[in-house]
Amino acid sequence: TLNAILEPIHPADIAHLIEQVDARDRRDFLTLWKGGIDGETLSELDENLREEVLESLAPEDLATVVRDLESDDVVDLVEYLDEDQQEQVLDALAAPDRVAVEQALSYPEESAGRHMQSELVRAPEHWSVGEAIDYMRSDVILPDQFYHIILVDPRLKAVGYVTLGRLLSSPRATRLRDIMEDSFRTFHVAQDVEEVAQAINHYHMITAPVVDDDDRIVGVITIDDAMAFLEEEAEEDLLRLAGVGEGSLSDGVRETTRQRFPWLAVNLVTAILASMVIGLFENTISELVALAVLMPIVASMGGNAGTQSLTVAVRAIATRDLTGANVWRVIRKEALVGLINGIVFAVVMGVIGAVWFGIPQLGYVVAAAMVVNLVIAGLAGTMIPVVLDKLKVDPALASGAFVTTVTDIVGFFAFLGLAAIYLL
Amino acid sequence: TLNAILEPIHPADIAHLIEQVDARDRRDFLTLWKGGIDGETLSELDENLREEVLESLAPEDLATVVRDLESDDVVDLVEYLDEDQQEQVLDALAAPDRVAVEQALSYPEESAGRHMQSELVRAPEHWSVGEAIDYMRSDVILPDQFYHIILVDPRLKAVGYVTLGRLLSSPRATRLRDIMEDSFRTFHVAQDVEEVAQAINHYHMITAPVVDDDDRIVGVITIDDAMAFLEEEAEEDLLRLAGVGEGSLSDGVRETTRQRFPWLAVNLVTAILASMVIGLFENTISELVALAVLMPIVASMGGNAGTQSLTVAVRAIATRDLTGANVWRVIRKEALVGLINGIVFAVVMGVIGAVWFGIPQLGYVVAAAMVVNLVIAGLAGTMIPVVLDKLKVDPALASGAFVTTVTDIVGFFAFLGLAAIYLL
Ligand SMILES: [Mg+2]
Ligand SMILES: [Mg+2]
Ligand SMILES: [Mg+2]
Ligand SMILES: [Mg+2]
Ligand SMILES: [Mg+2]
Ligand SMILES: [Mg+2]
Ligand SMILES: [Mg+2]
Ligand SMILES: [Mg+2]
Ligand SMILES: [Mg+2]
Ligand SMILES: [Mg+2]
Ligand SMILES: [Mg+2]
Ligand SMILES: [Mg+2]
Ligand SMILES: [Mg+2]
Repeated sequence: TLNAILEPIHPADIAHLIEQVDARDRRDFLTLWKGGIDGETLSELDENLREEVLESLAPEDLATVVRDLESDDVVDLVEYLDEDQQEQVLDALAAPDRVAVEQALSYPEESAGRHMQSELVRAPEHWSVGEAIDYMRSDVILPDQFYHIILVDPRLKAVGYVTLGRLLSSPRATRLRDIMEDSFRTFHVAQDVEEVAQAINHYHMITAPVVDDDDRIVGVITIDDAMAFLEEEAEEDLLRLAGVGEGSLSDGVRETTRQRFPWLAVNLVTAILASMVIGLFENTISELVALAVLMPIVASMGGNAGTQSLTVAVRAIATRDLTGANVWRVIRKEALVGLINGIVFAVVMGVIGAVWFGIPQLGYVVAAAMVVNLVIAGLAGTMIPVVLDKLKVDPALASGAFVTTVTDIVGFFAFLGLAAIYLL
Repeated sequence: TLNAILEPIHPADIAHLIEQVDARDRRDFLTLWKGGIDGETLSELDENLREEVLESLAPEDLATVVRDLESDDVVDLVEYLDEDQQEQVLDALAAPDRVAVEQALSYPEESAGRHMQSELVRAPEHWSVGEAIDYMRSDVILPDQFYHIILVDPRLKAVGYVTLGRLLSSPRATRLRDIMEDSFRTFHVAQDVEEVAQAINHYHMITAPVVDDDDRIVGVITIDDAMAFLEEEAEEDLLRLAGVGEGSLSDGVRETTRQRFPWLAVNLVTAILASMVIGLFENTISELVALAVLMPIVASMGGNAGTQSLTVAVRAIATRDLTGANVWRVIRKEALVGLINGIVFAVVMGVIGAVWFGIPQLGYVVAAAMVVNLVIAGLAGTMIPVVLDKLKVDPALASGAFVTTVTDIVGFFAFLGLAAIYLL
């Protein structure tokens, strides 16, 4: 049967398979597999396909599916379900798991509290290694995977952690507090989960302890989940910079068309603005059509240089490498880089322009416009994302439109304006 | 002193600080701190700043610095040093560490063997839990951090692994082979390290065992390093798509200018190509200057739509979501999305064009060109990265230039060509 074939395949691979086939094959597959799907496969599945699968499950199957998941994975499954479906899943959980999931759901969407798992191992700091080992060998329920023991004081405040490797290599009589790791960092439930993931990466942590207002440990964020968050954030920035929304490859034509539309609409408006600048110089162009031939070059070079600067800036803001401490240095550098490359390409394009149309002055005009536009590109490409970030607007989302509007308008205006003054 | 101030600060934070200040402050800081820098700080530092620091160290300080690093971090430090400097660092290592580092350096640059750490814990599969614990409590040298024990058969072939949590919670008499995890994956020394990092993410592994041709375990790649690799790869794709090379924010003006130049040069060539297309229609434009005003709009909309498609495709190729199994489906979808959005924007722009210049036929021409260019954008945006990937060219690096050249040329040619036929 289908179950026997799928048995040896890793849930992540089954999920990938379900994502890869087309909508019809997917429906057939799920009908055939009815009830066989497990919680892990469901967790690994693209969010936009999960609802379809959840709806295909009978309530009793749903119960089996969610019961072996960790609390963070249950939260991830139910957080965007409508209330009825959410209720159904929660009913399938054992009472303490349900409490943990409801607790997590009470924290804001992108917070550490929302994404932590409640399954963790903690021990009083005054215990010995032997006591800890005996506790773990007793019939207590341990998480599927854990790599640290978190030490708590009598008021349940988290005070440090012991790695399992350290625990295993120490004599039974050793006190846990004496083999605690040097550095211990906790994260508040309300903190942004992206920040926690970045800290996990930055400090090479394996799990990040999450604490409530009283510093009591309430959950952990594990490195494998942090890795997935950072991947998602990097992907989000990449797609936003290209003006592609939250899309996924398995979205249909209608959904994808809808996602692509807004950015194209914004671009239409900015392109019309740029055209209006050209419109100011209709008379100039009709006297020298060569201007129409050369004008896209200046705008295009500015757009590309601006995109280079803005991409570096957006990434550096995301990784906290561009900060108040170096922002002016970076802006000055980008303007200088624009100036130097501007001069180089001005010479090249000046010669080409002059030779192509046999008008030396046309060469000077295109060269001057090139220098102006590349300096502006470096400035706008850095300052626009920095300002947007200060205004709490995601610089990945909005910078592109602003920067290319600036370089298009400056490019056309500088080139045609100088031509109007010096050529005619 | 400086050392006392820096003592409580995490090495990753010290490295970040060194990266943030300007070149002069950095030199002063390193002079003051002479000899105080530790291996971890050096490892965390941006690659392009390390050489400066290494050169400022006396040979005896260098020895202290590298001795407490894991083998993969030593490799990362020395791999791009010149032979003299490399020799100096290697001389500072204990003999077995030196062998491990030289072994790793013998594997290709981006391979698992090059990036693995040799520090790991393995045990014969026939051992009991008690034997394993006693071994770890003996005076054997254990890695700083480890979370699994890898089980080997008598010929040292890796056969499975036991998590430390499982080990700790099992009775002393239990055989290790009876508490092995279900799934066990090994990676060959020659395999691409990016693939290993993706597998770690995909399968939620904490360490990936690396084996030689005889399946003997020779090292592991840890999840914290895998996380850093994936971050780097995502950043690389983002920067390459924007035509920015290997750059780092701490590069100087000269270096940055040099990095930005090639992409701008490529763009100049493609912009000139597009201008030559316009040049074919000089007479048409001189008869109706409105064409010069409207023509950048069609090209710009195509460029943006093409960039949307290509960014989705490049990302999906990187994450292995776009494969032979769904490539035709995706191409058809992108063409359809281009067609639908093309029609919508054709109507909008057709009306605007007709009203702006009072020439209804101008509206038809701009509308038709818009539809053509957005369909071509969807097709080129998907097919170009797919073909480049097949040809083993990084689609992130080269797609952008090809796609926007196509949309510029098609945009200008369709608009001006239709205008020449139907308007004059
Ligand atoms: Mg996936
Ligand atoms: Mg899990
Ligand atoms: Mg979620
Ligand atoms: Mg989890
Ligand atoms: Mg986000
Ligand atoms: Mg973001
Ligand atoms: Mg453009
Ligand atoms: Mg850094
Ligand atoms: Mg390390
Ligand atoms: Mg390296
Ligand atoms: Mg390492
Ligand atoms: Mg690479
Ligand atoms: Mg890549």
